[in-house]
This record gives sequence, structure tokens and C-alpha cells, in this order.
Amino acid sequence: MELRIDPWGQETIKEYEKLFEYFGIRPFKEVLPLIDKPHYYMTRGVIFGHRDFDKFWRLYKDNKKVAILTGLMPSGKFHMGHKMVIDQLVYYQNLGIDVYVVIADAEAYAVRKIPRKEVIEIGINEYVANAIALGLDPKKTVFYFQTNQDPRYYRLIQMISRKITLNELEAIYGELEPSKIISVLTQVIDVTFLTHKQFGGYECILVPVGADQDPHLRLARDVAERFSELGLKPPASTYHRFMTGLDGGKMSSSRPESAIFLTDSIKEAKHKVFKALTGGRATAEEQRRLGGQPEKCTVFELYAYHLIQNDNELKKLYDSCKLGSMLCGECKRRAAELLIKWLKDHQEKLAKAREIAKSLQLEPDF
Amino acid sequence: MELRIDPWGQETIKEYEKLFEYFGIRPFKEVLPLIDKPHYYMTRGVIFGHRDFDKFWRLYKDNKKVAILTGLMPSGKFHMGHKMVIDQLVYYQNLGIDVYVVIADAEAYAVRKIPRKEVIEIGINEYVANAIALGLDPKKTVFYFQTNQDPRYYRLIQMISRKITLNELEAIYGELEPSKIISVLTQVIDVTFLTHKQFGGYECILVPVGADQDPHLRLARDVAERFSELGLKPPASTYHRFMTGLDGGKMSSSRPESAIFLTDSIKEAKHKVFKALTGGRATAEEQRRLGGQPEKCTVFELYAYHLIQNDNELKKLYDSCKLGSMLCGECKRRAAELLIKWLKDHQEKLAKAREIAKSLQLEPDF
Repeated sequence: MELRIDPWGQETIKEYEKLFEYFGIRPFKEVLPLIDKPHYYMTRGVIFGHRDFDKFWRLYKDNKKVAILTGLMPSGKFHMGHKMVIDQLVYYQNLGIDVYVVIADAEAYAVRKIPRKEVIEIGINEYVANAIALGLDPKKTVFYFQTNQDPRYYRLIQMISRKITLNELEAIYGELEPSKIISVLTQVIDVTFLTHKQFGGYECILVPVGADQDPHLRLARDVAERFSELGLKPPASTYHRFMTGLDGGKMSSSRPESAIFLTDSIKEAKHKVFKALTGGRATAEEQRRLGGQPEKCTVFELYAYHLIQNDNELKKLYDSCKLGSMLCGECKRRAAELLIKWLKDHQEKLAKAREIAKSLQLEPDF
Repeated sequence: MELRIDPWGQETIKEYEKLFEYFGIRPFKEVLPLIDKPHYYMTRGVIFGHRDFDKFWRLYKDNKKVAILTGLMPSGKFHMGHKMVIDQLVYYQNLGIDVYVVIADAEAYAVRKIPRKEVIEIGINEYVANAIALGLDPKKTVFYFQTNQDPRYYRLIQMISRKITLNELEAIYGELEPSKIISVLTQVIDVTFLTHKQFGGYECILVPVGADQDPHLRLARDVAERFSELGLKPPASTYHRFMTGLDGGKMSSSRPESAIFLTDSIKEAKHKVFKALTGGRATAEEQRRLGGQPEKCTVFELYAYHLIQNDNELKKLYDSCKLGSMLCGECKRRAAELLIKWLKDHQEKLAKAREIAKSLQLEPDF
């Protein structure tokens, strides 16, 4: 496939150039040619950066033991931003790669101060269940709660504290509390413990995350490297763009209008799409003359991230916006239709997935 | 028994009055009348203070579920100061009370930075083995390593971090590092987790410790009280005097001349006793005239803490020193004789105890 749509190319570079420059994140397009059948997040620039993806991919191609791991914070409802992470896991799982999903319940309880029962309930009923409904195979995926792991996992957390200073944590995270410190060390182990010989001895773990998670990964890489006696290997990672909130701000569970939740009713979802901020012009006349601005449009993000997987079809939509031949009203109606169809289908799967999620007995006993 | 020998009474009050006054530690003699057959550490003022011992004792007398727990830091060799802790555990075990011993291996590795293999080796071969040789019943005692516990124990550590601030930890411990913070939270759970319904739901845990350990206990009491949702109960505690180092300083594994180790050869032990700092006077003439000062004498401590269990006999020795009728040379010869006899006997038991300690399979696998 030659077609490349990366409407945010310019902006991405502007926004994230500091990451590239200062922290050594590499542009994902450098490694794209390595991949036979890339996910559309890769071709469309949604996944824009990486560390050591090439190394990970080489090991995978050589049939070495590699795995994918990512974390979900069980706070609030599962939205389309979370879906982006699971979509990537499903992609890798379909390639035959082992997939691990950590439910960051210790952090949700101790740092975010969400009641424990709620954390567990959300963890299973929202996060694990939606992940399964989105296509993760419950038989092949290892889900675990941070508070319900093997004792040796905690041993590693205790052990790595030996060579981490409060100063370096403060330099990364700012002001700290004990809960945050434990949470940070736990995350370091989440993204490295699978490389320990007691936990499978994977040769490389790839962690697909949003760009804001990079500090955790840098710390984990540092710790793994400075603490070779533990036999932990530094994680590889990819970085994806955040979805913009439908209101133009950050997409967040705490502002329901900013996000489409996977459990939204048809009515709610429709309403949110019709209220969403677009890249339309001040008047219809102007828009017909100048064309729309899909690169600034949250509805176009919905299409590009979720609703249209075929690149040709997306290109057609993009062009008809740019040319001013399709205006926002029409475009929103089409998006709402696709979204509703998808949501209905997903919610049917979700009902079953919730039963499966419960049957996995991941639930910590308190 | 009416006889009360507390040669350090005056000094203890001077040294420890701040503890009594500021921190609410109560004098142990207040609760002594409750106990039918007190240990000689209790009658002699070696155990000088407590928190909630009366509450603990009442529950024990009412046949409620109570337990004793203490921690050992596996650093260096086991000396007569460590023996004091185990002696107390043996006393309570003989009363039918459940005994738990935590080997603080996480702290030894991460805070004290002792190599991991050494920590495990010392933990089993020095600490668990000596504890068994000193009389703890390996079938009745629960020994555990901090790094080798039930996942729910770590869950509690993660959970309590929720309500502990860095400020309050700094107020207690001064400057902190992540390793120390994890270690402190682990200790809080060590002295409280047995009161959780998932771990036996003991109604009260008594923790016999040296006075320097009180900050940990105060913190644990605070945390248990402020965090009632976890169902943890504040620990009771007793405080014992430290043995003075034989050279007059602090008794420490890092200054071999300061301590009698339970693995010392006969020759080493003899040598240390003869070199020990006494409460003798400048000349023999002066000592015959003024009498010795057992309250300042490290050899008298050896007698009172370890070598003479019979109070009448100890009183005789004390008097003959005070009256100047027995001088230091003679006194040291007697001490060395008793010590050597005891050490020989102990070291025979220790050989067997080491095998038992190994067979308990407490050893973490890395």
C-alpha cells in the first residue's frame, strides 16, 4: 500500500519534536518499512514515535521470545482513547505475539484515591471486559492486577529501590508522595519483569503507550541498565497521539462531553458527535470556497482512529472535506451512523465479554 | 519472688525519660504485677517500657487470639544482643502464644546494600538457625522473609501508602530514599498484617523491640488507626535496653570487639571477656575500699542479661562487687567460664538447628 495519510504530520513534529530531540524517541516512520502489514495507526501517523522498535521487531522476526505489555488505570469509564491501546494489542496478538495487560489497581487506589471496591469493579467490568470485547483473546492474554501478582514480582519492586534516588524521581515526576513512589517503582517492574528468567525470560518487551508515559519508560530503561545483576532488560516502546477531546480539550473520563465511552447509549453518542468541535469554517459558503480543515477536526479523528479502516475510503473523505464538497453536517451524520453501528455491535460483544472477564477470576479478594 | 534487681533503674529513667514523656511509652513495672511468671528481663528492668502491654496481656488471659512478632535484620553475625530478642520470643512461645519472626531481607538488600546471596545465607544460617538453637520451636514458629510473602501482604503495603505523606516520614526518619520508604511501609505491615482478617485476624500483636525501634511502631499505630477501612489493629510493644558494647560503645556486628557472637570460638570469647570494659576502680586497693560499679560494667551486663538466670545468685554477685570483696579479674574468670560452657552447648545445638533451618525451605529462589 503506497497511500499514506498523516494529516497531523506537521503538527506532530511541532508538538513532539522535543521528545524526539531531547529524549531520543525515534520517528516511527523510520521503522515502518520493516513491517509487512502495518496497523493503520502506523501508516496514518497515529503511532508517531518509538524506542528500540527495530530491535524488538528483529527479535520477533527471528522467532525469539518477545511480548507486548501495556497498563490500564481502572479509573472511570472506558473510552475511545483506551480503545486505541487495545487495538494495538489485538494487532500484535494476531501476529502471534504474547500479550500482557496490567490493571494498575494499586495506583488507582493509592495515588488516585479511588475506593478499592470501585477499582476492582471497574478493572474487571470496564477494562478487562472491554479489552476482550475489542478482540483480545481471553485464553491467550495474561491480565493481572498489580495487587494480585506473584511474590517474586514484589521482590523485584523491593530490590530495584536499592539504586533509585529520590532526587532522580523528583526530577522526573516533581513533588512526590510515598504512594506515587511505590506506584512508579511498580510500573518500572511492570514493564521489565517479563525479561527476568523467573518470569519467562523474554528477550524484549514492547510497551505501546501514549506519549505522556515516556518518563516511566525512560526510568525503567535506566533502572534495567544500571541494575544488570537482576537480569532485567530495557523495554522497547511505541508512542501514539492522544485523541483530542470532542470539545477540543483533553479527552478525559472526568469530562463526559469530551469522550465517547464504549458504553454510551446511542442517543448519547449521537449527541456527542453532533456537538463535536470540527475544522469547519465560519460559514457554509466559506467552507465550500476554502475547504474544511480535517487536521483540526475531532470528527475526522473519530474516522481516522476508529471508524474507517480502509485507507482509500479515508482518503476520499479527507479530500471531499479539503475540497469543500462535503460540509460538517453531512460528515457528522455519516460519522454518527458508523459510530452507532460499531457501538451496537461492540455492546453486544461486551455483554458476553463481561461474563468472560468475571470467569477469569482475576478479582483480588480484598 | 520479691527480689528486684534493676541496677540501671536510675540511668534508664534518665536515658529514656524522653520516650516516656514525649511519646507515651509506659514504664514496664506498671504492668509487671499482672504477670504470674515474668521473664527475668522483666524483673531486672531490662525490659523497661511498653505500649498497650496490659491490653495485650488481658486478651491473652481471656484466651483471645494474640501473637508475638519481631523482626531480624540479616546483616552480619548473630550476637548476644540479638539473643535478647529471641529469649523473649521463647518465653512467650512457652506460654502458648503464636510466634512470628520476620527476616527483614528486603531492607538488608535495598537499604543496607548487602549482596542478595549474603542476605539469604545470613538470614537462614545465622538468624533462623540461631533462633531455633535458642529454643524457638521450628514447628510452631512462623519465619518469613519480607521478599517471600503472600501477595496480599504486598497489597497491604501498596494500600497503606495511600494515607502516608512524605512529610510525616521525613519528620520521623530524616532524609529518605525510595528504598527506605518501601522498607518503612513494609515494616508497618509486618507489625500489623496479622490483625487483618485474611491473615488470621489476631486481636492484638505484641512486638518486643529495642527502644530505637519505637518510631516504626508509632507510625504503625498511627496508620492502623487512621486507616480503619483496612481492618488493621495497632500493635502493642515492649522496649528493652540495649546491651552495651564490650568496649563501652554500641554493640555492633561491624565492630567485632564490641560483641560476643554466638559463633565465636572459645578463644575469641575468652579474649573478649578479659578485654571487656568493667565498672572497676583505678586500683585494686581502691576497689576493695569503694566497691565496684556493676551498673557501669559490661561484664555485669553479660551476667544479668545472659549468664545468671537465678535472681538470688545474681544478687550475690552484685553485692560482692559492690562490697569490693570480688575484684574484676576473678569476676571475669567466672563470666568467661559460664559463657564458654553456654557457648559450647549452644554451638552444638546450632549445628543441628542449621540443618533444620535449611529444611524449612524459607529460602527465596533469588
